[in-house]
Amino acid sequence: MPSGEDDLIARYFKPLATDPGALGLVDDAAVLAASRDDLVLTTDAIVEGVHYLPGDPPRAIARKALRVNLSDLAAKGATPAGFLLTLALRSADERFLAPFAQALGEDAALFDCPLLGGDTVSTPGPMMISITAIGRVPPGRMVRRNTLCAGDRILVTGTIGDSALGLDLLQGANADISDEHRAFLIDRYRVPQPRLALAQAIRDHAGAAMDVSDGLAGDLAKMCAASGVTAILDAAAVPLSAAAQAMISGEPAKLARVLGGGDDYELLCGVAAQQLDPFLAAAQRIGVSVSVIGSAEAGTGAPRWRDAEHRDIALSGLSYSHF
Amino acid sequence: MPSGEDDLIARYFKPLATDPGALGLVDDAAVLAASRDDLVLTTDAIVEGVHYLPGDPPRAIARKALRVNLSDLAAKGATPAGFLLTLALRSADERFLAPFAQALGEDAALFDCPLLGGDTVSTPGPMMISITAIGRVPPGRMVRRNTLCAGDRILVTGTIGDSALGLDLLQGANADISDEHRAFLIDRYRVPQPRLALAQAIRDHAGAAMDVSDGLAGDLAKMCAASGVTAILDAAAVPLSAAAQAMISGEPAKLARVLGGGDDYELLCGVAAQQLDPFLAAAQRIGVSVSVIGSAEAGTGAPRWRDAEHRDIALSGLSYSHF
Repeated sequence: MPSGEDDLIARYFKPLATDPGALGLVDDAAVLAASRDDLVLTTDAIVEGVHYLPGDPPRAIARKALRVNLSDLAAKGATPAGFLLTLALRSADERFLAPFAQALGEDAALFDCPLLGGDTVSTPGPMMISITAIGRVPPGRMVRRNTLCAGDRILVTGTIGDSALGLDLLQGANADISDEHRAFLIDRYRVPQPRLALAQAIRDHAGAAMDVSDGLAGDLAKMCAASGVTAILDAAAVPLSAAAQAMISGEPAKLARVLGGGDDYELLCGVAAQQLDPFLAAAQRIGVSVSVIGSAEAGTGAPRWRDAEHRDIALSGLSYSHF
Repeated sequence: MPSGEDDLIARYFKPLATDPGALGLVDDAAVLAASRDDLVLTTDAIVEGVHYLPGDPPRAIARKALRVNLSDLAAKGATPAGFLLTLALRSADERFLAPFAQALGEDAALFDCPLLGGDTVSTPGPMMISITAIGRVPPGRMVRRNTLCAGDRILVTGTIGDSALGLDLLQGANADISDEHRAFLIDRYRVPQPRLALAQAIRDHAGAAMDVSDGLAGDLAKMCAASGVTAILDAAAVPLSAAAQAMISGEPAKLARVLGGGDDYELLCGVAAQQLDPFLAAAQRIGVSVSVIGSAEAGTGAPRWRDAEHRDIALSGLSYSHF
């Protein structure tokens, strides 16, 4: 006596449940066999109209939902073990579900993070996708946010600000940039690139780490506050893509948007001086760019940002908050 | 530079994060230390207007959100380890959040299931609470849904149908019952009683188990289908509360509502003949009522329900489905 909900799960999501612990999604729970690893648990939800736009492609929505969670696992130095999916839908629309599930399955395979279970519910409101991702680290080795030390160099992966600028473009901002740059920035907004390839290097060499999801400046301030230190940052050292450079070149005021905008899903970490070279070497081997943007210092004030002439820059509204 | 979201988390939810693995909710992830147990993972979401009514008390909403997940852990024979909370809110309304968080904390303490982490997001739509609960079982001992065997006696805990009748009352159904019975049924709808006290007895004696969330008849049909067996059930043996008996006494047609309605959050299990007495004895020691309602049989048809005169009863629309 299968219900519509069970049909939907069997049709779209059972093919993703490749792990034996998922029990083919016929049970109400999944099982993760005992192991010698600590488990890292993280959960992030994305809401239509808040974290993505109603017109975003279903494939991109699926990828964003999973990848924002994988980004957290990467920042903790964890290897993915699997994920649970809660999907709140207005209707069981095949035109949405088929490409959504397909892309989710492709990403689950790409990042070796199988679907373990979930819940599918109806909602009269905006669609919402909540994912809980589970990762593994050797005992005691999860990298924390609140362990940045005075003297640590502060680094970020990839490039910063692309996603916020991409969102601006989707929302109608004018920019005298090429179609290629425009497409690049929009793609950066829609499809985060979780830096899982760097997870082991983070675990081996970083003293503290988090992913940049609410804006670099604000997230760095949170890391400093949680760690009881402050920091001095070199705004000119923040890595920018060619597309971002093109978009802000005419408007230096947009630097605040780059440093304060959200959805970067790059990694921010503190690395002790003696670990810097091995970390940079590991990142180079892996092929992920990392940039030193400043240093942590003793003290408790807000991090200070300086321009190329070492003058303080005032930044306001630096972090995205839902409330 | 704390944001409104961080303030909200610190004020309302940090007090619930009593487990060291929650890291005081200052990190993006929680950590569960390696152990010799298998981990059982389950996730269930509740949506305003779908799983609860907009006028339901915040304390009841909190309890329902957690307890529907704890009910799944109980059915799997698992002991709670903790939970992750995703909260999608229209606004950070203290009148909602303060009692919601307080009741959630009380239940977390009552069931020894601490808050490990979560995500708080804004939504323009109905409120949604998605919880992922994690439990522990000795290796290989999670009780499954698809392992019901021909010959197993089929049992349920507590009483069935109260919640569906309570929802009917909240939605304006007429019933010539006492105020006390009315309050009992409404409370059963609003605040499930997860049968965690019975988890170890389920693990020790049940061959298959699930919780009854989408209606007893439909959930039993799912268990039979997943297990490749059928069943014969005695409708008169289904345990009814005095309040439910009072409400359906004048309208026998409401039996279908009792067997088909959802939100019971009782446990449904299959117990082999030689395990029946020890299981009943364990339940009695614990003080949870359990009732034998039928037996599993070889075959693949839909379970057959019989009345007190052993005549077949036709039941339709037996399971709640979101789509």
